[in-house]
Amino acid sequence: MSTLVLLRHGHSEWNAKNLFTGWVDVDLNEQGVAEAMRAPELLREAGILPDVSHTSVLRRAIRTAQITLDGIDRHWIPVKRSWRLNERHYGALQGKDKKATLEEFGEEQFMTWRRSYATPPPPIADDDEYSQAGDARYASLPSELLPRTEALAQVLVRLLPYWYDEIIPDLRAGKTVLVTAHGNSLRALVKHLDDLSEEAVVGLNIPTGIPLVYELDDDMKPIEKGGKYLDPEAAAAAIAAVANQGR
Amino acid sequence: MSTLVLLRHGHSEWNAKNLFTGWVDVDLNEQGVAEAMRAPELLREAGILPDVSHTSVLRRAIRTAQITLDGIDRHWIPVKRSWRLNERHYGALQGKDKKATLEEFGEEQFMTWRRSYATPPPPIADDDEYSQAGDARYASLPSELLPRTEALAQVLVRLLPYWYDEIIPDLRAGKTVLVTAHGNSLRALVKHLDDLSEEAVVGLNIPTGIPLVYELDDDMKPIEKGGKYLDPEAAAAAIAAVANQGR
Repeated sequence: MSTLVLLRHGHSEWNAKNLFTGWVDVDLNEQGVAEAMRAPELLREAGILPDVSHTSVLRRAIRTAQITLDGIDRHWIPVKRSWRLNERHYGALQGKDKKATLEEFGEEQFMTWRRSYATPPPPIADDDEYSQAGDARYASLPSELLPRTEALAQVLVRLLPYWYDEIIPDLRAGKTVLVTAHGNSLRALVKHLDDLSEEAVVGLNIPTGIPLVYELDDDMKPIEKGGKYLDPEAAAAAIAAVANQGR
Repeated sequence: MSTLVLLRHGHSEWNAKNLFTGWVDVDLNEQGVAEAMRAPELLREAGILPDVSHTSVLRRAIRTAQITLDGIDRHWIPVKRSWRLNERHYGALQGKDKKATLEEFGEEQFMTWRRSYATPPPPIADDDEYSQAGDARYASLPSELLPRTEALAQVLVRLLPYWYDEIIPDLRAGKTVLVTAHGNSLRALVKHLDDLSEEAVVGLNIPTGIPLVYELDDDMKPIEKGGKYLDPEAAAAAIAAVANQGR
């Protein structure tokens, strides 16, 4: 049996500003740091000690992992990072105000871009100030591999090779694996793990700062679908709060 | 030509308490954090951007590297850690007060333990509270590989395989390599790079928080012996201050 721990980073500077973020590398804000500091408490109580840490290449996930591991005296474990764990690329919406976008394009279009499984926003231009075309951390990627926009479907496609080739080998080696990433990259991974339909994943929301633990069988499938949040009441409350926002 | 950047972490909580530290995993104190924050400024001014980060498995080096890389927007580069970059193991002196040790054993013995190239302090017992025999991060090492004490000579012996097998391949791949480590592990590495005699390395002191940059030729030897500190005046002043302490 292998243990996989998923952790979603919390609030960033652009949450407060109500901007679409995606691949733009904004930092956690104070609230996000506080959220990250809950994770080590919950892991310690549960007696779960990661042996290896996987993160995206975005600062808000990297910092969340660092705070978490520092808090459980696991700052020294091996670290692997990949753009394949990045947040969904938000295309031309990156850096745009959410409210202004809603007003400009109307609610139906807005909700399609936010929630549709397969319809991405318009692509971002390479010379847009919020494009990653000139970002040093992606300089080794062939241009056709660098996303200019993504829907969740594309996130899953670019994430799966990392799951199969980098994370599963660590799990097979008997390691407890921590994956610290983003709302949408984790939704894509959970869709795969729990074999969710496209409709089901649209309604899936993963709370921030609460480790989600999966025990996996030899076929790398969850022994219990949905896994287990280390603070189930707080997770349920956070999920209910997001569901109520839509009403 | 390859670029190697050496960075020594600054003050830790046990500097202030005047205790022998070695492999005990104490954190930076406020002064140490401030020292770490100078490094990214100096790297940015010099236009040096590391492509890969190597650290020991001790928190004070790990944090120094994180602060440095975060400050130059390089938080996302690959990270490799090894016990082979750890500080010298201080044996039975770990956790002991320096002044009390000086009084108990006399100045000659004290200075031999601190500065001799090849004479280590007495070994630490595995059941000593400051032993690393039960530390999870070394659990995969065969017992005979885990140091119970070291002189600088032993540090060099256990460091060199990491230099040859992990750091040099990165340098040969054309990467700018940052090695964030400790006073004695960096002294050992500099002894090797600059081909210093045992006598010369005894007098060598590496200032904290000031990146030391080596350009290396195809044989991985320095083009200029001694390398170049990014703030040479501050480095010279720090070295002189240490030299004057002994008077």
